[in-house]
Amino acid sequence: RRTGVPEAIFCHGKTPAQIDAIAAAAGDRRLLLTRLSPTLHAALAPETRALLDHDPLSATALLGGGVPLAASGIGIVAAGTSDLAVAREAARTLAFAGYDAEIFADVGVAGLWRLMARLDEFRRCRVLIAVAGMEGALFSVLAGLVEAPVIAVPTSVGYGVAAGGTAALHAALASCAPGVVVVNIDNGFGAAAAALKMLRAYSRAM
Amino acid sequence: RRTGVPEAIFCHGKTPAQIDAIAAAAGDRRLLLTRLSPTLHAALAPETRALLDHDPLSATALLGGGVPLAASGIGIVAAGTSDLAVAREAARTLAFAGYDAEIFADVGVAGLWRLMARLDEFRRCRVLIAVAGMEGALFSVLAGLVEAPVIAVPTSVGYGVAAGGTAALHAALASCAPGVVVVNIDNGFGAAAAALKMLRAYSRAM
Amino acid sequence: RRTGVPEAIFCHGKTPAQIDAIAAAAGDRRLLLTRLSPTLHAALAPETRALLDHDPLSATALLGGGVPLAASGIGIVAAGTSDLAVAREAARTLAFAGYDAEIFADVGVAGLWRLMARLDEFRRCRVLIAVAGMEGALFSVLAGLVEAPVIAVPTSVGYGVAAGGTAALHAALASCAPGVVVVNIDNGFGAAAAALKMLRAYSRAM
Amino acid sequence: RRTGVPEAIFCHGKTPAQIDAIAAAAGDRRLLLTRLSPTLHAALAPETRALLDHDPLSATALLGGGVPLAASGIGIVAAGTSDLAVAREAARTLAFAGYDAEIFADVGVAGLWRLMARLDEFRRCRVLIAVAGMEGALFSVLAGLVEAPVIAVPTSVGYGVAAGGTAALHAALASCAPGVVVVNIDNGFGAAAAALKMLRAYSRAM
Amino acid sequence: RRTGVPEAIFCHGKTPAQIDAIAAAAGDRRLLLTRLSPTLHAALAPETRALLDHDPLSATALLGGGVPLAASGIGIVAAGTSDLAVAREAARTLAFAGYDAEIFADVGVAGLWRLMARLDEFRRCRVLIAVAGMEGALFSVLAGLVEAPVIAVPTSVGYGVAAGGTAALHAALASCAPGVVVVNIDNGFGAAAAALKMLRAYSRAM
Amino acid sequence: RRTGVPEAIFCHGKTPAQIDAIAAAAGDRRLLLTRLSPTLHAALAPETRALLDHDPLSATALLGGGVPLAASGIGIVAAGTSDLAVAREAARTLAFAGYDAEIFADVGVAGLWRLMARLDEFRRCRVLIAVAGMEGALFSVLAGLVEAPVIAVPTSVGYGVAAGGTAALHAALASCAPGVVVVNIDNGFGAAAAALKMLRAYSRAM
Amino acid sequence: RRTGVPEAIFCHGKTPAQIDAIAAAAGDRRLLLTRLSPTLHAALAPETRALLDHDPLSATALLGGGVPLAASGIGIVAAGTSDLAVAREAARTLAFAGYDAEIFADVGVAGLWRLMARLDEFRRCRVLIAVAGMEGALFSVLAGLVEAPVIAVPTSVGYGVAAGGTAALHAALASCAPGVVVVNIDNGFGAAAAALKMLRAYSRAM
Amino acid sequence: RRTGVPEAIFCHGKTPAQIDAIAAAAGDRRLLLTRLSPTLHAALAPETRALLDHDPLSATALLGGGVPLAASGIGIVAAGTSDLAVAREAARTLAFAGYDAEIFADVGVAGLWRLMARLDEFRRCRVLIAVAGMEGALFSVLAGLVEAPVIAVPTSVGYGVAAGGTAALHAALASCAPGVVVVNIDNGFGAAAAALKMLRAYSRAM
Ligand SMILES: Nc1ncnc2c1ncn2[C@@H]1O[C@H](COP(=O)(O)O)[C@@H](O)[C@H]1O
Ligand SMILES: Nc1ncnc2c1ncn2[C@@H]1O[C@H](COP(=O)(O)O)[C@@H](O)[C@H]1O
Ligand SMILES: Nc1ncnc2c1ncn2[C@@H]1O[C@H](COP(=O)(O)O)[C@@H](O)[C@H]1O
Ligand SMILES: Nc1ncnc2c1ncn2[C@@H]1O[C@H](COP(=O)(O)O)[C@@H](O)[C@H]1O
Ligand SMILES: [Mg+2]
Ligand SMILES: [Mg+2]
Ligand SMILES: [Mg+2]
Ligand SMILES: [Mg+2]
Ligand SMILES: [Mg+2]
Ligand SMILES: [Mg+2]
Ligand SMILES: [Mg+2]
Ligand SMILES: [Mg+2]
Repeated sequence: RRTGVPEAIFCHGKTPAQIDAIAAAAGDRRLLLTRLSPTLHAALAPETRALLDHDPLSATALLGGGVPLAASGIGIVAAGTSDLAVAREAARTLAFAGYDAEIFADVGVAGLWRLMARLDEFRRCRVLIAVAGMEGALFSVLAGLVEAPVIAVPTSVGYGVAAGGTAALHAALASCAPGVVVVNIDNGFGAAAAALKMLRAYSRAM
Repeated sequence: RRTGVPEAIFCHGKTPAQIDAIAAAAGDRRLLLTRLSPTLHAALAPETRALLDHDPLSATALLGGGVPLAASGIGIVAAGTSDLAVAREAARTLAFAGYDAEIFADVGVAGLWRLMARLDEFRRCRVLIAVAGMEGALFSVLAGLVEAPVIAVPTSVGYGVAAGGTAALHAALASCAPGVVVVNIDNGFGAAAAALKMLRAYSRAM
Repeated sequence: RRTGVPEAIFCHGKTPAQIDAIAAAAGDRRLLLTRLSPTLHAALAPETRALLDHDPLSATALLGGGVPLAASGIGIVAAGTSDLAVAREAARTLAFAGYDAEIFADVGVAGLWRLMARLDEFRRCRVLIAVAGMEGALFSVLAGLVEAPVIAVPTSVGYGVAAGGTAALHAALASCAPGVVVVNIDNGFGAAAAALKMLRAYSRAM
Repeated sequence: RRTGVPEAIFCHGKTPAQIDAIAAAAGDRRLLLTRLSPTLHAALAPETRALLDHDPLSATALLGGGVPLAASGIGIVAAGTSDLAVAREAARTLAFAGYDAEIFADVGVAGLWRLMARLDEFRRCRVLIAVAGMEGALFSVLAGLVEAPVIAVPTSVGYGVAAGGTAALHAALASCAPGVVVVNIDNGFGAAAAALKMLRAYSRAM
Repeated sequence: RRTGVPEAIFCHGKTPAQIDAIAAAAGDRRLLLTRLSPTLHAALAPETRALLDHDPLSATALLGGGVPLAASGIGIVAAGTSDLAVAREAARTLAFAGYDAEIFADVGVAGLWRLMARLDEFRRCRVLIAVAGMEGALFSVLAGLVEAPVIAVPTSVGYGVAAGGTAALHAALASCAPGVVVVNIDNGFGAAAAALKMLRAYSRAM
Repeated sequence: RRTGVPEAIFCHGKTPAQIDAIAAAAGDRRLLLTRLSPTLHAALAPETRALLDHDPLSATALLGGGVPLAASGIGIVAAGTSDLAVAREAARTLAFAGYDAEIFADVGVAGLWRLMARLDEFRRCRVLIAVAGMEGALFSVLAGLVEAPVIAVPTSVGYGVAAGGTAALHAALASCAPGVVVVNIDNGFGAAAAALKMLRAYSRAM
Repeated sequence: RRTGVPEAIFCHGKTPAQIDAIAAAAGDRRLLLTRLSPTLHAALAPETRALLDHDPLSATALLGGGVPLAASGIGIVAAGTSDLAVAREAARTLAFAGYDAEIFADVGVAGLWRLMARLDEFRRCRVLIAVAGMEGALFSVLAGLVEAPVIAVPTSVGYGVAAGGTAALHAALASCAPGVVVVNIDNGFGAAAAALKMLRAYSRAM
Repeated sequence: RRTGVPEAIFCHGKTPAQIDAIAAAAGDRRLLLTRLSPTLHAALAPETRALLDHDPLSATALLGGGVPLAASGIGIVAAGTSDLAVAREAARTLAFAGYDAEIFADVGVAGLWRLMARLDEFRRCRVLIAVAGMEGALFSVLAGLVEAPVIAVPTSVGYGVAAGGTAALHAALASCAPGVVVVNIDNGFGAAAAALKMLRAYSRAM
C-alpha cells in the first residue's frame, strides 16, 4: 500500500489452515490471493471459499469484492495460449487495483503478420506488458515497434533448453531493443505492480 | 528514435577503423557511443577524437555536441563507488537525450542510516534507477520505501558467487518488494532508455 | 556429541522400516529426527509414533522426551511466514539441546519499518539466525544493524530465478555486510548446530 | 572430403610451429585454416605467410589458391556489425568450396523495417544462414517469414546474461518457428558445412 | 503452412477443454497434435477422441485422416529403445505431411558393429535424423560416415549429468564432425519440420 | 565499526587516484585495504605508498600503523600452499583489529597424518578458520574432529570442475559435519570479520 | 560381453510390456535388469516376475538364476545409510558376474574414527568402490589412505547445493588425492563394470 | 608415495620464488613438477632451471634425473593434436614413475577409419587412457571396442558449449559404454596416477 502496489498473499507453500486464518483476519480489508491453485482452493474451509472470487486459470482470488474498473491504457500481449495464465494474473492484479486492461492473445513472432495486424492497437497503449515463453522473441520485436514502456514477463512455457523459463528471461534481458524492462519468470503480478507504479507516477507528474 | 530512445553505438567489439567510419558518416546527426573504453578511445583517429566528448569512467562519448538539460525527476542511486561507472552511463544517456539527473552515491545497505538520511530526496523523484552489485539488497530496500517505479541495474561488481553480476541480477528479479523492474547486468544505458520511455509516456498521457 | 552438536537422524530418503529400527535401537539415548514429513511420520509403526514428539510444520521429532530449557540468547528472525518451517527446525534443534530461543516472524525487508520496530530486541541477542528466501536481502540489512554474529539460512521459498534457493544463498554469501556466515539452503538444523558451537565456545572461554 | 565437407584446420590452440608444419606438409592439397587470429598469423614463418590468403576479420586463411565461384543460392543474414566476423567465416568456407554467397548485414530485429525491406531477397535463397548474438530474436522472425531451411549461428556478441552466446543459442533451439536448425556458438564454419551438405543432397537428388 | 511446415498443436500445458475446442473448430483442416500424453488423451471428450488417430508412444495424434505416403529418402536413426518415442514423433510428423520414413532402431555407439552393419542403408538416405540421449556420441560417429545432412535430436534419456538432455545436446553442438545441425532436446517434431524444409528446397531447386 | 568489524576498503576495481584520495582523506583513522594487488600498489602515488604497510601475498595494506596484538584463540588452517594468500588475508584483518592468530599450513586431507599430528593444537583454538580449494574435504574432516566453531573459506584454487571455487564452496555448504558455517569464495576478510564478531559476543557474554 | 562387462537392461523409461518382451526373448541368456523400481516391477506380467530375482532396495533383478560367487577382492564403502541402495546396485552387478564383494556401511567422514577402525580391511582390498553423497569428502580421505584404485560413485543424496549429486561429483573429480577415478552420479552399475574390467586385466596380465 | 602415486608439485599459482625453494629443498628426492608453463619456467632462478628437465608442450619438469623405463602396457589415445599436451602430461608422469607408454595421436571419431586401423594395437594394451575434448565421442567408441579399463580425460579443447571442457566431461560420465572411468578436465597427471594404481594392484594380485 505504502509504495503504491496492492497487498497480495502468495499462497503457494502456505497450508490451507494458514490461508483460512489470513482470510478470517482480513476483516474489511480487500485482499488479492495469488498462486492459489484449484487444488489448494478446494482444500480451503467452505467459509473461506464463500468469501473468495477465484479464477482457476490465473490461480488468483479476490477477497472483499470487486471495484468499478477505470480504463488504464495498459495492454497485455500474450505470445501463445499457454501464456494466458500469466497474462490473466497481471489482468486480475490490475482489476483488484481498479483498472481495466485488454489482453491481446496469440500474437507470437512465428506468425508475424498476426502481430502486425494489431500494431495500431498496441501503439495506443501507454504501457505494454508482454508475456512470452520459449525463446521470447516477442519482447524485442514489440519493443522495436512501439514507443510505450514494455514490461517483459518471461514464462516457464517450453521444454528442453526453454524449460523453466530462463531462455525467455535471458532473451528479455539481452534484448537488442533498448528500454525493455523485465520481471521474474511467470511474475504477472509483479508486471502489473510495476505498471501501476508507472500510472501513479503519471498522475503525480501532472 | 522511432521508439523514443536515443540512437547509440555499442563500441565494444568494433575495430577503431569501424568506429572512425561511423563517426565520419554521422554528418549532422548526434550520436551516443557506449562501451568506448579509454584504450579503444585512444586508438581512434585524431579526427574522430576531436569530434568526441569522451568520459573515461563511464566509457561513453557524445558526438555532435551537448544540448541544454531539462530537469527529469529521475534519480540514480548507486550502492558503492565501484557502481559509479554504470550509474554515469545512465546519466550520460539521459544528458544526451536532454535530461538532467542526480546521482546519489555510496548509499549501500550495510550502512542503512546513510540511505535513510536521503530518503526524502529519493521520494521526490518520479523514477529511480538503482545501481548495485554484490548481493543487490539495495533494490528491495529502496523499492520498499518509495512510490516511484524502481529500475534495477545489477552490476558485475563482486567476486566469488557475485562475480559477473548474476547474484545481484537474481536478487533484483526475486525481490520481495513488488514492482521492481530489471535490465541486463551493467546496462546503465538500457535503464536510462526505459526511464525515458516512462517520461515520454507521462507527457503523452497529459 | 564429540563435536558439541546433537545427534540427529536425517529421515528423508530412509524407509519407515529403517526409522522404526533406529527408534527401537535408541534405548535410553535421546534422538532428534529431522526431515520427518507428516506422510513419512504416518507410515511409521504405531510403537514408534508413540515414542515421538512430532512437529509437522518443521518436520522434526524428538525421541526420549524433552529437557528443561535454558535461555540461550539466540534469536531466530524469519523474513516471511513461508520461512517459518525452517525457523522452527532451528528452534526445535536448540530445544533438543536444552536451549530456548525466540522466533521473530514476518520481518522482511519490503516492510522495513516492521524490522526497525524490533531492532532493540535483535540487538539484545548474542547470536542471530536469519531465515529468508527469495532475494535474501534480510541478511545484509540485519547484519548491518547488529553486533552479534549473524548466521544466514537461505530458504528454497520462491519461484523463477529464486526457485530452489540459490538466489538467497548467493545473496547471503555476497553480502556487503562483513561477517555474515552461511549454511546450506533450508538447513535450520545446521544453523542451530553452529549457534550451539558458539555458545559452547563462550562458556569454554570463560 | 569423404562426407562432402571441406578439410579445415582449427588453428586456435596450435603453436605457430605446428601450423608451419601443417602448411609445409600440405603439398598440392588446398587447405582452409580457421581461427587464425591476426596475432597468430603474424607469428607464422614468412614462408607460410607467403602461401596464405589471410582475412583478419574472419580469422580465416586459404592455402593453395582460390577457385572460380559458382552461385550457391545460400544467403547469410547478420543481425549486427559485430556478427560480421562470424558471417564472413561462413562465406570464406563456402568460397573455399567453390561457392559464392551474399551477406546481408545489419538486419536486426529491433529495426524490423530494415529486415522487411529485404524479405524478397531472403525468399529467393535456397538456404539461409542467420547469424545473431544478444537475444537472437532474428532466428524466429526470419524462419517465420521464409520457406528455405534456416541454419542459426548464435554468436558470443553481448554482455551480462548474453556473454558467451548461450542466450542466443537457447533462443535458436527454443524457437517457436518450427524447422530452425542450429550449430555451435560462433560456428560459421559449421553452418557453411551444413549448407554445403544440403546443396550436395540437392544435386544427388536430381 | 506459409513456411512449408505442417500446422501443429503443442498440447502439453493445454487443458482438455481447450484441446476439445481446437479439435471442434478445425472443421476440414487436417491437424497434427503433439505432446498429447495418454493421460491427456484419455481426458478429452469422447467426440474429440473419435476424431483422433492417437499414438501413445510418440504422444501424437492426427486429426482429419491420413494421406497416402510418398517415399522421402529421410532416415531416422535411434540410438536406444528409450529414444524410440522421439523418433516416432518425427516419423508421425513426416507421415502427416505425406512422407514415409524408415526408423533404424538400436544402433547405439557402444555396439559399433550394429551401426556399421547398416551403414549402406544410411548412405542411401538423402537426410538423416539422428536421435540419441545419454552422451550423444551417435551424432559424431554417424556424421563422420555419411554425406547426407545429419539433423541431431538430443533426448532427455539418461540420469546424473545426462538428466534432462543437455549432455547429449552439447555433444551434438560440439561435434567434431562438421555440418551436424541440431534441434532442441526431444524435439522430433522440429527435426521433421527441418527435413521437410530441405526436401522442399530440393524440389524448388530442380 | 558500528557492527564490530574493521573498516576496510575493497581496492580491486578502484583507480589508483581513487585510492590515493581515500588514503589522503583518512587523516588519523586507521584503515585496512584489501585486494590491493602488487600491480595496483605500484601504481599508487609515492606519498600513499609511504603511508602503507603492504603485504603482496595477501594483497592487503594497513594504513595508520599497527597496534599491539592480543592472543585471540583463533586458528587458521590452510589446506595447501596455494591457499596461503587467503589465509593471510584473514590473519592481516585480525592483526588490524588487534588480534594475533596462528596459521597452520599444508594440512590437506590427502595426507591425513599431517592433519592428525596437529589435532591437539586445533582443539585448543576457540574459533577455527579453515581455508581450502579443490574439493574442500578439509572442512568436513576438521569439523568432525573439533568442538570449536569452524568457519569455512572455500578458495578458487583448482582447475576443471574446481575452477573458480564452487566445488569447494558446495562441499563446505553440504558438509555432513553439522555446524560448519561458510563465507564467500576467497573471502578471508569476511571469515576474520565473523571470527571477530564471535570474540566480541564472548566478551559481551561474560 | 565383448568388452568384458555384463549385459544389462536399463529399465527406467521402458514400459512394462517392453520389459516383459525382453524377458520372454532372453531364452537361456542370463540378464541383469537395473533401475527396476518396486512400482515398475509390480506392473510386470506375473510370468516375468516369476523369472526374476528382484531386490527392491537396489532396484535390480537377475533373470536366469544366480551363479556361485568367487572372492573378488573388491570392497564397497558407503558413507551413509542413504547411500546403501547405490552400493547394493554395485554388489548385485558383481554377483551377476560371479563375484562376491563386501559392503562396508556407515563410514562417513564426520565420524572419522569409524572409518579409521576399518582401515586395515580397506587396505586388504584390490579395488575399492566408494559411494557417497552430500559433500563427498569420503573419496579424498579414503584415497589418501589406501594403495588400491578407488572408484568414486557420487550419489544424489542431499539437499540444497547437494541436491542431484553434482556437489559430490565435483568433489570426486577435484579430489586432491591423485588417482581417484569417477563414474556418473548414482551409477553403481558402472562402478562395478569398471572394477570387473580391472579384475579381467589382472588375470590377462598374469 | 604411501598410496602408490608419484609426488608431484602443482606449479600453477605458485610464485617463482616458492618453486625455487621447493627445488632447493628437494635434496636427493626426485620430484615431478606439473603445470609449469614456459613463462613460469623462464622466471625461475638459473640454478633451478639447471636442475630441471622441462617439457614445454606438457608443461612438466622432472627434477632429479630420469630412470630406466619398463614397459607398462598402458596406451594413451589422443583424439586431436590439441589434446597432445594433456596426453604428454600423462606420459611424463608415467615416465617419472619408471614406465614407458605409447601415445596414439589423431584418432578422433570423425575419421573413424583411422581409429579402426589401430584397433589391434589398442586391444593389446592393459589400460587405455583416452584424451579428448569437444564432444568427447571418443570415450564411448573406444570403450565399446576394447576389454581393457578405459580412463577418460576430457580436455578443455573447444569453444561455445565445449569451452572449458564440461561437454566432454559429461560425455565421459554419461557414456553408454559401461565401465568408463573419468578424471577431472585436463588431468593427465591424475589419469596416469590411476593407471599406476591399477598396475600396482596387478602385481600385488600376483
Ligand atoms: N536436517 C539436516 N540437515 C543436515 N544434516 C543433518 C540433518 N539432520 C541430520 N543431519 C546429519 O546427518 C547425519 C545423519 O545421517 P544419517 O546417518 O543418514 O541419519 C548426521 O551427521 C546428522 O548430524
Ligand atoms: N512438439 C513440438 N515441438 C516444438 N514446437 C511444436 C511442437 N508441436 C507444435 N509446435 C509448434 O508450436 C506452435 C503451436 O503452439 P500453440 O499455438 O500453443 O499450439 C506452432 O508454432 C507449432 O508449429
Ligand atoms: N576483501 C573483501 N571482501 C569482502 N568485502 C570487503 C573486502 N574488503 C572490504 N570489504 C567491504 O567492502 C565495503 C567497502 O566497499 P568500498 O566502499 O567500495 O570500499 C565495506 O563494506 C567493506 O567492509
Ligand atoms: N544402471 C545403469 N547405468 C548405466 N548404464 C546402464 C545401466 N543399466 C544398463 N546400462 C547400460 O545401458 C545399455 C542398455 O540400454 P537399453 O538397451 O536401453 O536397455 C547397455 O549399454 C547397458 O550396459
Ligand atoms: Mg514465445
Ligand atoms: Mg550492493
Ligand atoms: Mg526474503
Ligand atoms: Mg541479435
Ligand atoms: Mg546415446
Ligand atoms: Mg583442498
Ligand atoms: Mg558423504
Ligand atoms: Mg574429441
